Amino acid sequence: MSLTNASPADAARAAKSASHVLATLSAEARNDALTVIHAGLTAARDEILAANARDLELARQAAADGKLSASLVSRLDLGKTGKWEDMLKGILDVRDLEDPVGRVTLRTKLDDGLELERVTCPIGVLLIIFEARPEVIANIAALAVKSGNAAILKGGKESTESFVAISTAISNALSQTQVPNDAIQLVTTRESIPQLLALDRDIDLVIPRGSNELVRYIKENTKIPVLGHADGLCSIYLTASADAKLAADVVVDAKTSYPAACNSVETLLVQESALTTVFPAVASALAAKGVELRCDAASTAALSPEITNIKDATPEDYNTEFLSLTLAVKTVPDLSAAIAHINTHGSHHTEAILTADQAEAERFMSAVDASGAYWNASTRFADGMRYGFGTEVGISTNKIHSRGPVGLEGLMIYKYKIRGQGHVSAVYGEGEGKRRFKHERLAI
Amino acid sequence: MSLTNASPADAARAAKSASHVLATLSAEARNDALTVIHAGLTAARDEILAANARDLELARQAAADGKLSASLVSRLDLGKTGKWEDMLKGILDVRDLEDPVGRVTLRTKLDDGLELERVTCPIGVLLIIFEARPEVIANIAALAVKSGNAAILKGGKESTESFVAISTAISNALSQTQVPNDAIQLVTTRESIPQLLALDRDIDLVIPRGSNELVRYIKENTKIPVLGHADGLCSIYLTASADAKLAADVVVDAKTSYPAACNSVETLLVQESALTTVFPAVASALAAKGVELRCDAASTAALSPEITNIKDATPEDYNTEFLSLTLAVKTVPDLSAAIAHINTHGSHHTEAILTADQAEAERFMSAVDASGAYWNASTRFADGMRYGFGTEVGISTNKIHSRGPVGLEGLMIYKYKIRGQGHVSAVYGEGEGKRRFKHERLAI
Repeated sequence: MSLTNASPADAARAAKSASHVLATLSAEARNDALTVIHAGLTAARDEILAANARDLELARQAAADGKLSASLVSRLDLGKTGKWEDMLKGILDVRDLEDPVGRVTLRTKLDDGLELERVTCPIGVLLIIFEARPEVIANIAALAVKSGNAAILKGGKESTESFVAISTAISNALSQTQVPNDAIQLVTTRESIPQLLALDRDIDLVIPRGSNELVRYIKENTKIPVLGHADGLCSIYLTASADAKLAADVVVDAKTSYPAACNSVETLLVQESALTTVFPAVASALAAKGVELRCDAASTAALSPEITNIKDATPEDYNTEFLSLTLAVKTVPDLSAAIAHINTHGSHHTEAILTADQAEAERFMSAVDASGAYWNASTRFADGMRYGFGTEVGISTNKIHSRGPVGLEGLMIYKYKIRGQGHVSAVYGEGEGKRRFKHERLAI
Repeated sequence: MSLTNASPADAARAAKSASHVLATLSAEARNDALTVIHAGLTAARDEILAANARDLELARQAAADGKLSASLVSRLDLGKTGKWEDMLKGILDVRDLEDPVGRVTLRTKLDDGLELERVTCPIGVLLIIFEARPEVIANIAALAVKSGNAAILKGGKESTESFVAISTAISNALSQTQVPNDAIQLVTTRESIPQLLALDRDIDLVIPRGSNELVRYIKENTKIPVLGHADGLCSIYLTASADAKLAADVVVDAKTSYPAACNSVETLLVQESALTTVFPAVASALAAKGVELRCDAASTAALSPEITNIKDATPEDYNTEFLSLTLAVKTVPDLSAAIAHINTHGSHHTEAILTADQAEAERFMSAVDASGAYWNASTRFADGMRYGFGTEVGISTNKIHSRGPVGLEGLMIYKYKIRGQGHVSAVYGEGEGKRRFKHERLAI
């Protein structure tokens, strides 16, 4: 790991070269490096927390001056109960995951002595751009080493001291391993971001970890594929057949358990025939949790005057990711209208239907154009740890490569290997005297 | 299928809406549509070949005036022996492939009554931009319908009459099926290309089928993911342990069986110790086939003066896709140098090593950064039909999503479905009184 003063172009080229070495290391060599990184960070605990305290002091001053949000200060703090331990445990958790490199996913006998094999391999060079959380460095370095990818890391300026301290420890650790030092490159200046985003020859994938604005800026300013999501506009469709208590529990969880999360619900679509049956109980439960409802005329009319936390919805409310205790409510006649609304206004993240009707649920789950489609469950389950992936690289709303919560698999691609005995192509074909391919699927 | 006068933006929006319907159709409905398209084209044979004859006449005039290449005229001709029949057979071949939609690739029990499922689904809307070959329309329409994707097709102007005749037949056929008419949109004006490439909200994937220049133009001018390859700069590394006859056969096949193909070899790397042993036989065999060698000093020196088809290589020759009977030859000391050359100069397409040493071959195949890495086999095997995929969407040199020859799988993504019973997220966690996820892998 090198904290480089090299130009972004040189850093990317060095990372690319290192990626070619890293891609050929054994699982043992990559896992050993993670053990050594873990030990190195453990030994450097005091220096790192001292550096983090210096970042925090500056951030608290900036917050006091109104220049930084309190939540950012909170995210910066590595000294919070359990955070340091979680960071270290995360490295060993990643180490202990199944090796994602070199898995054979297809084997075909093309002809006698001629075998085709598809085998997983690292993508190459990742560019990770993140904001305040300094523990992301350790997390991402672990994921990169485990998956055999080189990584270029760019952190936020508020966490510079923590970033340098953590990376110095990782760098010292890496120098005792087979992982090339250039495999993890650190970049500290903000000005380097546009330059890095232009290096589409050496950087293969950008992973932003931060605000919607950061992700949107990156998506708008690079031709390198971006794995992530700018928006999380999740909807729940409440049907007339849903159980009222079940519906209230799910919608309250989806809205209130962590309103700032991308998988929180932002729009509640209510079937017209549910307005006076199931909906009032859901609205009451939300109101009891302090949720403001932005209702259309029909849903407003369905609620008793006791529920006061209601405002008239504007058209823009149905395109808004509130990230707070606010929920847009819209009445729709039926399933088709609910699906059409979601496919027009949604962000392809996670959508849920609440219904007792299995056929309706299955139709909803097939038809909504989203990475997650749930039946009678909270949208908040959209998460790599909750899905059981062991780690999470991010949540993708892309339509190719990886979609939804992305684990280590999202950092892999594959290559085809052919092993022959001097086979040439010209002898194969349809005509007379031509050989035919055998195309026998072989066991993996 | 609609031959639309609508704006590109309206066409793309209509395709997106249609894609949401198409995504929910059963395999039977999609396969039936392919049967009907096949019948419709069969019935319209005479009109289509007459339209194609009109295109051909104009193209032949243009060729006579030196405005069009003879090879383009040849590619335009649907009346060539077997071409029409191949086009029609291709539709039924695609129909009879395994259904790519709705395949469950992961099932996990998250908790009692809470199941996660990952299931394949179409990507959405494809934009296909192709040049002279009119049969591509039928081929792509079949692939799109089979995979449940909507498609916008933009053909070259030389094939306009054929294009309109084929698409009218397909459109008439589709109107008798459950596939929405807007699912296949045709665009005929060249001016529409930049507009279409800007529609990254409604178009999910661009597939160019044509010259390197076309692909490069498209990659440079869109933020939509592009599936394809601009360059095919394939190399073969000839080692001292390779059998001379085997080596000559493979290199001759890779260079001469179809020099204009992207999977033909362009650079021969020769191990220094093979220069006077194996290399002369390979060079003689190439010379006998009329191949011009662009040699460095060491390889020139190794050849007897009888081989006259030699020129001095320039540095640019090692970055050139000749697409003709020309081959760059470079001497390298060892495997590491060969790998480094390929990873610096190659196009990540297909590379081969000729060696009797298995360990060396395996190291080469792991280390080269390419979609195909072969041992003792011709690079010309890089092809979807030869790999046994049944069809080929194209060959990708991308580092994410799909790489190498791409079959129907490359037109698919997946979504996660969760089926619950009112499950909420807030009850799960590490603390006391919290539920733990079960994360039991279930059979598929």
